[in-house]
Amino acid sequence: MSSDIAMTNAPVAADDAAVAGGMARSAAAVEAVLETLLPAPRGHHARVLEAMRYATFAGGKRLRPYLVLEGSKLFGVPDARALRAAAAIEVLHTYSLVHDDLPAMDDDDLRRGRPTTHRQFDEATAILAGDGLLTIAFEILAGPETHPSGDVRARLVSRLAKAAGGEGMIGGQMMDIEAPNHSFGEAEVILLQRMKTGALFEFAAEAGPLLAEAPEADQQRMRDYARALGLAFQIADDLIDATSSAEAAGKSVGKDAAQGKATFISIHGIEKAKAEAQNLAQQAVAALTPYGHAADELRALPTFLLDRAS
Amino acid sequence: MSSDIAMTNAPVAADDAAVAGGMARSAAAVEAVLETLLPAPRGHHARVLEAMRYATFAGGKRLRPYLVLEGSKLFGVPDARALRAAAAIEVLHTYSLVHDDLPAMDDDDLRRGRPTTHRQFDEATAILAGDGLLTIAFEILAGPETHPSGDVRARLVSRLAKAAGGEGMIGGQMMDIEAPNHSFGEAEVILLQRMKTGALFEFAAEAGPLLAEAPEADQQRMRDYARALGLAFQIADDLIDATSSAEAAGKSVGKDAAQGKATFISIHGIEKAKAEAQNLAQQAVAALTPYGHAADELRALPTFLLDRAS
Repeated sequence: MSSDIAMTNAPVAADDAAVAGGMARSAAAVEAVLETLLPAPRGHHARVLEAMRYATFAGGKRLRPYLVLEGSKLFGVPDARALRAAAAIEVLHTYSLVHDDLPAMDDDDLRRGRPTTHRQFDEATAILAGDGLLTIAFEILAGPETHPSGDVRARLVSRLAKAAGGEGMIGGQMMDIEAPNHSFGEAEVILLQRMKTGALFEFAAEAGPLLAEAPEADQQRMRDYARALGLAFQIADDLIDATSSAEAAGKSVGKDAAQGKATFISIHGIEKAKAEAQNLAQQAVAALTPYGHAADELRALPTFLLDRAS
Repeated sequence: MSSDIAMTNAPVAADDAAVAGGMARSAAAVEAVLETLLPAPRGHHARVLEAMRYATFAGGKRLRPYLVLEGSKLFGVPDARALRAAAAIEVLHTYSLVHDDLPAMDDDDLRRGRPTTHRQFDEATAILAGDGLLTIAFEILAGPETHPSGDVRARLVSRLAKAAGGEGMIGGQMMDIEAPNHSFGEAEVILLQRMKTGALFEFAAEAGPLLAEAPEADQQRMRDYARALGLAFQIADDLIDATSSAEAAGKSVGKDAAQGKATFISIHGIEKAKAEAQNLAQQAVAALTPYGHAADELRALPTFLLDRAS
């Protein structure tokens, strides 16, 4: 299924169906690993362990794990290692959703068509469950099963912490909360999105070369890919927020405009935002030039993400 | 200044004044390191970085860093390494205070005599600041300046994550929230406290031998010390809650009884709780037997902590 914003000139040898299939397989694999990594609910603290699982096993595309696994394939990383890095980034992403949904933050009742964690449990449990997911992300990365080299494991921890921290994802969320008090231009919107979602995308894409101890140039290429992909993904998300129904999106929509937040769409309008997304998709693909057919699914991913917003 | 619950038979060669002096020196040293490690507020996300600093630079005894630094001295760990581990555990402890104080949790307005972070800023910022402090704890531990060996750094990350996670501190906080719905006996109160505060004490005490790559037996002894110390500390805290004024304690008091939470005091009464604290202090001291005079301040620490509650 192609759309009016699908790319026409990029060297893509995989289609949306191939990406959807690969993504479904990687989601199933990472969920199986998460099943073994998250503690089983027991004892008088079972409630927080249940909430950690409720938030994690909520469906979703598992896009970040997919990036980790596809990036790892390019560099010959064994599946068992790649899956642990994929699991770590997914629980970290899940924590960010749990905390962002809280009443004091975005105050969302619905996430992927189900009650958000604080609606299903309560606020205190949701705060603690998010804290627990953030914490276990680092425990997973640092565990000896992730890589035989402690240096590699420590580097993964450092990079993920930087991507997710006050100068990364958390800073981006703060900037997002501050947005209605400012009139952000395009530069600020790009910075916000790069911090809020791009930093984690970049870590997901560089995890493969990091696990393979590949040269810094490869890590940089994968980050370049992810940076462009992340912005394209954000524009797609903004398009869904601006044009979809809550039922179709599986979450609350129309909130950006209601809150007066600057987005690519509020700055440029829908058509120019779509064109910019296509431009970013081409930039992402260009970063993968050295990797031949092994990178075909990663090349097809930007179009896949934009198609769902068309 | 000695108290009616000070120990009389333990081989303590340091007094409260020595501990107070050592603690003040270690607090100053760890605060200087934290000053350089926490990001300087800047940009449109400055608010969360400010809140991270507000919560961190709030005074306090810096008891966990003191344990890291004293434990590190026993095993000859260079100061620069020990100070990074001490800084990591202190920001992690600080995050737990920020989140525990939130309206959905303990709903405290006052912490160390100042407005809590969500009162000084707002709830969203406090949630994010806590998340940021938790995240940077792992970034600090994993950084190459913490130890030349990646294996050691990854092990520190693993141990801290386990101590702070859903089966450690977070699980203990969940159990504490659930407490009013149950009638916990002594075994449950001990488990709760061991998870909620003991796990982090144990990590603080074992960080020294971990950084020194000392034998597991040394790590175990330091954990044994910290486990007994942690329970004694908790009883001291309960005594303050039961008997002090808010002004003297620098935080809200009398909440345990108001919330119907089981504590050592509600189970055993004040006098028996004091006796148990003294017993625990002697257990802590006994674990340090192999370490001679180098451990004198650690031996004096339990009495110091109990004296402040007398």
